[in-house]
Amino acid sequence: MWHVDTAAAEAIAVGAGILGTGGGGNPYLGKLHLQRLLREGAAPPTVVAPDEVPDDALIVTVGGMGAPTVGIERLARGDEWTVALRTLEKHLGRRADYLVPGEIGGANATRPLVCAIQTGLPVIDGDGMGRAFPELQMKTFSIYGVKATPAALCDVRHNTAIFPDLPDTATLERYARAVTIQMGGHAGYAFVPMAGAALKRCVIPHTMTLARDLGAAVLRARREHTDPLDAVLGIVGGQRLFAGKITDVERRMAAGFARGAVRLDGLGAWRAETLTIEFQNENLIARKGADPAGGEIVAAVPDLICIVDSETGAPVTTEVLRYGLRATVLGVPAPALLRTPAALAVVGPGAFGYAVDYRPLPGTFGVGTDS
Amino acid sequence: MWHVDTAAAEAIAVGAGILGTGGGGNPYLGKLHLQRLLREGAAPPTVVAPDEVPDDALIVTVGGMGAPTVGIERLARGDEWTVALRTLEKHLGRRADYLVPGEIGGANATRPLVCAIQTGLPVIDGDGMGRAFPELQMKTFSIYGVKATPAALCDVRHNTAIFPDLPDTATLERYARAVTIQMGGHAGYAFVPMAGAALKRCVIPHTMTLARDLGAAVLRARREHTDPLDAVLGIVGGQRLFAGKITDVERRMAAGFARGAVRLDGLGAWRAETLTIEFQNENLIARKGADPAGGEIVAAVPDLICIVDSETGAPVTTEVLRYGLRATVLGVPAPALLRTPAALAVVGPGAFGYAVDYRPLPGTFGVGTDS
Repeated sequence: MWHVDTAAAEAIAVGAGILGTGGGGNPYLGKLHLQRLLREGAAPPTVVAPDEVPDDALIVTVGGMGAPTVGIERLARGDEWTVALRTLEKHLGRRADYLVPGEIGGANATRPLVCAIQTGLPVIDGDGMGRAFPELQMKTFSIYGVKATPAALCDVRHNTAIFPDLPDTATLERYARAVTIQMGGHAGYAFVPMAGAALKRCVIPHTMTLARDLGAAVLRARREHTDPLDAVLGIVGGQRLFAGKITDVERRMAAGFARGAVRLDGLGAWRAETLTIEFQNENLIARKGADPAGGEIVAAVPDLICIVDSETGAPVTTEVLRYGLRATVLGVPAPALLRTPAALAVVGPGAFGYAVDYRPLPGTFGVGTDS
Repeated sequence: MWHVDTAAAEAIAVGAGILGTGGGGNPYLGKLHLQRLLREGAAPPTVVAPDEVPDDALIVTVGGMGAPTVGIERLARGDEWTVALRTLEKHLGRRADYLVPGEIGGANATRPLVCAIQTGLPVIDGDGMGRAFPELQMKTFSIYGVKATPAALCDVRHNTAIFPDLPDTATLERYARAVTIQMGGHAGYAFVPMAGAALKRCVIPHTMTLARDLGAAVLRARREHTDPLDAVLGIVGGQRLFAGKITDVERRMAAGFARGAVRLDGLGAWRAETLTIEFQNENLIARKGADPAGGEIVAAVPDLICIVDSETGAPVTTEVLRYGLRATVLGVPAPALLRTPAALAVVGPGAFGYAVDYRPLPGTFGVGTDS
């Protein structure tokens, strides 16, 4: 058990940004919110390891859904997830005992911490993705059979919606996404109410700690003028896939998602080479060459394709990709729970429409590599 | 108080079809369902005048929403509205005492009668439109200040959604429409839970009786070989606006609605004239000439523009408009509750994007005219 103080919040935002693989929304605003609440005297949120949770405790996933692009011009009210949680609790007739992040990558790492302060509830050290993914059914909770409903949504005006009982999370994804778009493109959610026993079976453990340590290592490297990319790989594992300059970005909003591709022309060891990465909120597949459909695959979902600023190690999210940026592409092996056949059916390349085999990157998620 | 027997069901389906002004969905399937339940021994639904309802009774609007076009190829399960009602009752913590049709025009006239058999509840002799309209906020209940939420939707697979508290019915329309589209284009609903006192203030009264009498008059005219159109006008009021042959239909699905225009070339007294009617599920505006944007306005919402088969008086709904059909266009004065400034702001031509003044057709809704 540990507590999220101001310094930890700073580190988590950096680490969660990198684990967001381009999506998940920028955790920066959530971090500012969290730090303001702490400065105003709020008790730092408690982070609890999954194995400390009683089997009969009620754990609820809280966070936000919508295209990260929307978040740039429209601020969240800041308590959408908490009103969604209260709506869900009222529907269930029972209070939640713990909160758990749906995804540790991006803004949904910091929102449960804000909700923890607003509710006084502890947060689980773990999440349902070990990264970020664009759709709700891509959480390990859903992949390993935990029902996502009852589910509640809340928008910036505190308008709410409840889905009492849907047959699967993909249906919730469709219904909730349609409401989220009408809600202005962003909604707070509270769903996957589950028992402690179910949580322990399917959570990706210790990822809040991982985000904190990852961010702390990057911040330390910046202070000490060592290589922040070495620091990242030393904590989360994985390898450099490419380094270069962004030379083309194609980005469009489609059905509530930010979709597109980014092209990098190589520098240093990758001079004269080109890499193209396609994304749907998150980076999905990286291929050699300028043709998104043609080149040899370097990495693919569920492995993490993280674009970071080559100098600072700062995460470069989908919505801030821009011409000229010097960036390094890191390939991080996916958590083991995302590499099973059951998981690959939902989060593998085929689930995103790519008719290619998944070739796992070497290494182990969360086990640092020397570089 | 009266009861809906097999003959009344037959008549209501014809009358409701005419009052549907082209939309509202075809009441034919609901009629078949109702008649089957009656044949199987169900007690005929009780129809109760609004002034017989206690002020503190709970009345709920039940029916279906979605584009009528969808209903042609996808049958309703037949109890969506009842599951929506049960979901709403559970959320409210209280059982409903009466059902009320949201719109007497089209399929939502017969669905509450089916729900009445499924639940044993009586049905109010009245509705919220006196016709059909494409959007939820166009009910008198909403126009005159009754809150539409809590609201529940249910789809063909019994998947449900609850909107506990939205600020206005236009917001419910957007949120519920988005879910309805994801539900396959049709959903059963239960909403506008209201007290008897509120019902009496804003219901359009006696429209179930009107639909029954209107249909009965048409059926009698067919049997007796008198003019069914005279029979219609003799019951509901209004006038012949045009008679001719359908020579063009432009119809498209857009945002869950059937939109388009139909052109008729005149016959008899209207020979050498042309009439163009634009619709959004329902017929909205009728203009002289072939140019939808140009000609003199003959009738406009909220007045009822009813297209009927010239020989049989059968209603011609938007989804069955076809080249060559001999049709007569009837103009029926809207109910008084739809002609107030408050109502015209929501259901007048301007609410549908037409920058024209509303010129009321002469006569009184439900008061027959000689022709």
